[in-house]
Amino acid sequence: MHALILGAAGMIGRRLTKALVASGTVGDHPLDALTLIDVVQPDAPAGCAGTVRTEAADLTAPGAADTAIAGRPGIVFHLAAVVSGEAEANLELGYRVNLDGTRLLLDAIRRAHAADGYRPKVVFTSSLAVFGPPLPPVIGDDWIVTPASSYGTQKAMGELLLADYSRRGFLDGISLRLPTICVRPGKPNKAVSGFFSGIIREPLAGRPAILPVPDTVRHWFASPSAATGFLLHAAGLDFGRLGLRRSLTLPGVSATVAEEIEALRKVGGDKAVALIRRDPDDAVARIIETWPEAFATDRARALGFTADASFDAIVAEHVAEFQAGA
Amino acid sequence: MHALILGAAGMIGRRLTKALVASGTVGDHPLDALTLIDVVQPDAPAGCAGTVRTEAADLTAPGAADTAIAGRPGIVFHLAAVVSGEAEANLELGYRVNLDGTRLLLDAIRRAHAADGYRPKVVFTSSLAVFGPPLPPVIGDDWIVTPASSYGTQKAMGELLLADYSRRGFLDGISLRLPTICVRPGKPNKAVSGFFSGIIREPLAGRPAILPVPDTVRHWFASPSAATGFLLHAAGLDFGRLGLRRSLTLPGVSATVAEEIEALRKVGGDKAVALIRRDPDDAVARIIETWPEAFATDRARALGFTADASFDAIVAEHVAEFQAGA
Ligand SMILES: NC(=O)c1ccc[n+]([C@@H]2O[C@H](COP(=O)([O-])OP(=O)(O)OC[C@H]3O[C@@H](n4cnc5c(N)ncnc54)[C@H](O)[C@@H]3O)[C@@H](O)[C@H]2O)c1
Ligand SMILES: NC(=O)c1ccc[n+]([C@@H]2O[C@H](COP(=O)([O-])OP(=O)(O)OC[C@H]3O[C@@H](n4cnc5c(N)ncnc54)[C@H](O)[C@@H]3O)[C@@H](O)[C@H]2O)c1
Repeated sequence: MHALILGAAGMIGRRLTKALVASGTVGDHPLDALTLIDVVQPDAPAGCAGTVRTEAADLTAPGAADTAIAGRPGIVFHLAAVVSGEAEANLELGYRVNLDGTRLLLDAIRRAHAADGYRPKVVFTSSLAVFGPPLPPVIGDDWIVTPASSYGTQKAMGELLLADYSRRGFLDGISLRLPTICVRPGKPNKAVSGFFSGIIREPLAGRPAILPVPDTVRHWFASPSAATGFLLHAAGLDFGRLGLRRSLTLPGVSATVAEEIEALRKVGGDKAVALIRRDPDDAVARIIETWPEAFATDRARALGFTADASFDAIVAEHVAEFQAGA
Repeated sequence: MHALILGAAGMIGRRLTKALVASGTVGDHPLDALTLIDVVQPDAPAGCAGTVRTEAADLTAPGAADTAIAGRPGIVFHLAAVVSGEAEANLELGYRVNLDGTRLLLDAIRRAHAADGYRPKVVFTSSLAVFGPPLPPVIGDDWIVTPASSYGTQKAMGELLLADYSRRGFLDGISLRLPTICVRPGKPNKAVSGFFSGIIREPLAGRPAILPVPDTVRHWFASPSAATGFLLHAAGLDFGRLGLRRSLTLPGVSATVAEEIEALRKVGGDKAVALIRRDPDDAVARIIETWPEAFATDRARALGFTADASFDAIVAEHVAEFQAGA
């Protein structure tokens, strides 16, 4: 099977590429070909048994979506996106990439379907940002979508379009609402959620980290490898089991900041914990207050999606990767 | 206040025009000006105290949305839409009018907001078609939106955009999910829901009507005057009370086909009821089975929206109008 990754140069895209190449399969099929596209030139992976094509392209440029699917990939991982903070700061960019980009992709597939019966699997990465306040402590699979950000709005609109095009048979799609990825590797970024990873990653590297919210704040997390695991699991899933409801909130670990800190202490000791500096930021706290704390992900679990075992396991994965990289 | 009605030549648009002109007010303000736009030339109403402008224009034509709001109406009633059956039959038309048309309107307002601080009230008519199976017998205000039609998808996407633009302060919007309007006047049309009105309207006019579903089918209704009432009530409402949740499912009357028939019998007798011919259509029955039966509309009721008293009252309104018209 030919797999296409849009947004292949991103954090999850790079890991997914690696995982696909390592397994040599996608779902139940051998991986014959891999197309990697991103506005940033993606690296060609080493050791892929199938044909690899990499391309630097903006999904929203005229014809780019048609070119992307020209090889008729059997599965499309659509990860290309402008992240939350950027979509809020730059409204037109966010709607262009996150909404129009998704629509251009799905419409290119629709036209290909009309032309030659093409009907790929499409795995779209959505987000918890589709949910907004007021929220119950544990959110069920039937809970209403009311985004509190433009990013969440764009993801929710993409989910709806994907579901409609799936219903009409142009494609076979799923929207995976990923938990907040933690521990996110790399430099601290401007994402509001950045501190959730920062208070683990930075102290373990001997650097200070700022904590802008109270220790009681609770949120929903998955490790980078759990995120890759969700995408790989989706590749093998029969989406017919989803019915009309093509969006899934995925299992995660619900943890408070205090629990994060205790997990850090176990591996880094008091020395690491001492590197966390409490610097309350009311603006950040007010945003985080509106975020989900936990989900009952019955549907996703019934479909075989599994989460990290605990926040300790999330930290252990990070430590192992950090040591392997160092 | 200057009011703009987009879709003014439609069934609800014509009634809303009449009601606004009759009251001479919109919300708490005198009606100074009325702009009526539709792809079909709207009739200019008689007796309007304010300035009236009518225009035949396609909302999706380049510049049409900017022209529509050039007079900076303080309130925009956005009713222009391609209906359910047409949006399903003609995918591109449905997305163009129902999604792009709405987005063009909201983006024109966003640009005007940036240019001169314009920030109108926007009342968008959404639909129960945003809900899809599986549904509980009574649907609460927190229930998930999973449309089972392209029309419902387009309405749900419009709701999301309107909520985001409201949150960002470009406009002050509300999406009203109207119940199925019954008794819909005029000729039988191809809407799947047409028989709900047809089995009342046609027999009362001495004509036969076809009933394609079992008598046990239950659905959610509002009279044409209740629909107009919802729009007028919204005009006077402080949308700040909605918070992030800019969409409201409106109160209605939950009635079975059997209850409809008994209401018909009360005014038209057995003679009228005898004009209903049962002609089961499995395709229609399968679609209708996925439709909502009843809602708990706590939020809308708390905001002062009120429904018809009963299905008998709905029929009585139709009879009165029919007699006035005849
Ligand atoms: N990381 C998380 O916590 C998280 C949580 C929920 C959902 N997601 C979603 O998962 C996906 C991947 O996330 P990530 O953490 O790898 O993000 P990332 O920012 O690292 O990767 C996104 C990639 O998309 C690319 N891209 C942006 N605009 C593009 C365009 N116009 N054309 C082509 N490529 C473009 C970027 O260059 C980037 O490489 C995104 O859709 C994101 O919204 C991530
Ligand atoms: N009638 C119902 O049962 C019901 C239920 C729920 C929601 N709604 C919604 O309420 C609104 C009004 O419904 P209605 O029953 O009066 O429908 P209608 O079809 O009678 O009126 C819609 C009007 O929109 C106009 N229109 C279509 N495309 C246009 C375009 N591109 N530019 C400008 N005008 C355009 C049509 O000419 C028509 O006059 C619609 O948005 C509809 O989706 C109706």
